[in-house]
Amino acid sequence: MKPHQQSVPCGCGIDVHAHLVPEHFPRYIGNALPADWPSMAPAHDCHRHVMISGKVYRTVSDRCWSAPKRLADLPAMGLALQVVSPMPELFGYWMAPAAGQQLTRYLNDQTAALVDAGGGQLAGMGVVPLQDIDLAIRELEHAVRVLGLRAVEIGSNINGLPVGAPMFDPFFEACVALDAAVFVHAVRPAGMERLVGPAALQQVLAYPTDVGLAAASVVTGGLLARQPKLRMAFSHGGGTLAALLPRLQQGWQVFAALRESISEPPADTVRRLFYDTLVFDDAMLRQLLHAFGPAALMVGTDYPFNFQERAPMQRLESAGFDAATLQAISHRNARRFLGLDPHKDSE
Amino acid sequence: MKPHQQSVPCGCGIDVHAHLVPEHFPRYIGNALPADWPSMAPAHDCHRHVMISGKVYRTVSDRCWSAPKRLADLPAMGLALQVVSPMPELFGYWMAPAAGQQLTRYLNDQTAALVDAGGGQLAGMGVVPLQDIDLAIRELEHAVRVLGLRAVEIGSNINGLPVGAPMFDPFFEACVALDAAVFVHAVRPAGMERLVGPAALQQVLAYPTDVGLAAASVVTGGLLARQPKLRMAFSHGGGTLAALLPRLQQGWQVFAALRESISEPPADTVRRLFYDTLVFDDAMLRQLLHAFGPAALMVGTDYPFNFQERAPMQRLESAGFDAATLQAISHRNARRFLGLDPHKDSE
Repeated sequence: MKPHQQSVPCGCGIDVHAHLVPEHFPRYIGNALPADWPSMAPAHDCHRHVMISGKVYRTVSDRCWSAPKRLADLPAMGLALQVVSPMPELFGYWMAPAAGQQLTRYLNDQTAALVDAGGGQLAGMGVVPLQDIDLAIRELEHAVRVLGLRAVEIGSNINGLPVGAPMFDPFFEACVALDAAVFVHAVRPAGMERLVGPAALQQVLAYPTDVGLAAASVVTGGLLARQPKLRMAFSHGGGTLAALLPRLQQGWQVFAALRESISEPPADTVRRLFYDTLVFDDAMLRQLLHAFGPAALMVGTDYPFNFQERAPMQRLESAGFDAATLQAISHRNARRFLGLDPHKDSE
Repeated sequence: MKPHQQSVPCGCGIDVHAHLVPEHFPRYIGNALPADWPSMAPAHDCHRHVMISGKVYRTVSDRCWSAPKRLADLPAMGLALQVVSPMPELFGYWMAPAAGQQLTRYLNDQTAALVDAGGGQLAGMGVVPLQDIDLAIRELEHAVRVLGLRAVEIGSNINGLPVGAPMFDPFFEACVALDAAVFVHAVRPAGMERLVGPAALQQVLAYPTDVGLAAASVVTGGLLARQPKLRMAFSHGGGTLAALLPRLQQGWQVFAALRESISEPPADTVRRLFYDTLVFDDAMLRQLLHAFGPAALMVGTDYPFNFQERAPMQRLESAGFDAATLQAISHRNARRFLGLDPHKDSE
């Protein structure tokens, strides 16, 4: 590693982890209003409260819905393209399927509208009501074929079931058929009962914990053996996966039950998945590169929330990656993940 | 780092993470036999089954209770001293307090007997019924004052409550008063509902997850601010803590609620705790050194279970640590943790 020797490819970055929240939510159309149907309420200048179940879930800035404000921020972040996806608490997996479908349809329409207003500098990920796999597949078809979204954002768990559970196989088969990439983001995480301190620890500690377990469930559940063409990424650098991996690899070598049920070494499987760079630390980034390989990492920022990486390209530079690695992480891996270079699929 | 340049201080290692299981368990003395009171049943040569709730919990070798066999293995592992602690599923936190006290007393007596048979090459950690803090403190007094054990092994959670929960403060105060080190080991972990695959994944994935959350709970709960003299170590390299830490440090800088409730930077607090080296990977070991510092790591093996580090000193060597770091990790930190050099407390 030779820190600060390479200059970052300026302004070419692709951020695959950035969120939107719509300025408004529609009224629920149906008989029984779900208790957690979201709404927006006025807050201080340029901000609004996301209201869920009668409480302020989060106060967000107009950068969540304003295309001009978002576009104005991209150059200073070194980004040529930002891929926007809804704030995960809006997945609505916990609602009745019809309500979840209504909410995700609205979010997908809003996402497509934001992408349209982006003048080529924004791309979008859809969301789908995974509490009902058939409905989710139909919504994915709409998001990809009608709205032109390139990927789908899903939770690290769906009402407690990790994404690697075999029951989700038909959905991932549809993702491959539709050439839609999958971005797995933490939501309603495991481990909440182990936290001691303020509510923010959910995002800070339990989110990466749940993402790590979700990624591990994909590895141990054999999803990539069944869907080798699936392009799947994990938020927050894969969360705790990098720390779990050496023990998983060793466990695979020691326990016959693991070797019998997992067809390839976990240390190989993890290199066929994608991860964002949202770890706020040079040494941790280098550890991700070591564990997952140079083809696996893509820039992620959590823009425009407060807990975001504000200088993602400088972070790559300070991690001391070589020029080829910088190019791969800053944009080439993301282009492959998003299917933007179809002729380069095999590289 | 200059791998393979330094030679490991041979035969001076101290292993702080090794387990015992007694050859027999006594009959329960009381009216209502706890369903999960353990017993042993014959297995193949030199092995016995640990029976819990009518099922084989684990099949273990006679190295779990035989001092001669254990001592015969130490030289090849490069160890001068091994600190033995009971297999964590024997903590009995889930039993009525009186039953838990009976079980931990038996285990402490067995541990002391094994230490006595060790001719100075074995030390011991007690266990205590933490489901009743007063009983736990009394058992700790017995373990330290009467039996001469140097440390106490506790679970990463006690019936679901993480060790950093303030209700355990009186116990840790007693640990400081008795000069007993605390070794936190995974048990009945969080995240079980996120696993997809064989039962061994509990040990492989959920154990380090629970240890990471336990260590984080100590950091965010401020235990070391209240008990600055507490010497506390975490199993399995602190589990996922190393991966959680950069995000915790960044979250502490971003969220006012965290800065207000946590008095020092988490990246500083973690360097005042101890961790074993049981991570099965050179790069991960170097990451632990980077995150936790050279004074924090101690050799751990999980001897004599199948899922153990069989060559702990070679692992340090292949990680490429310098001579001072090798000395610190192989034995000096453990001596400080165990209080074996009282005059060197301040170094």
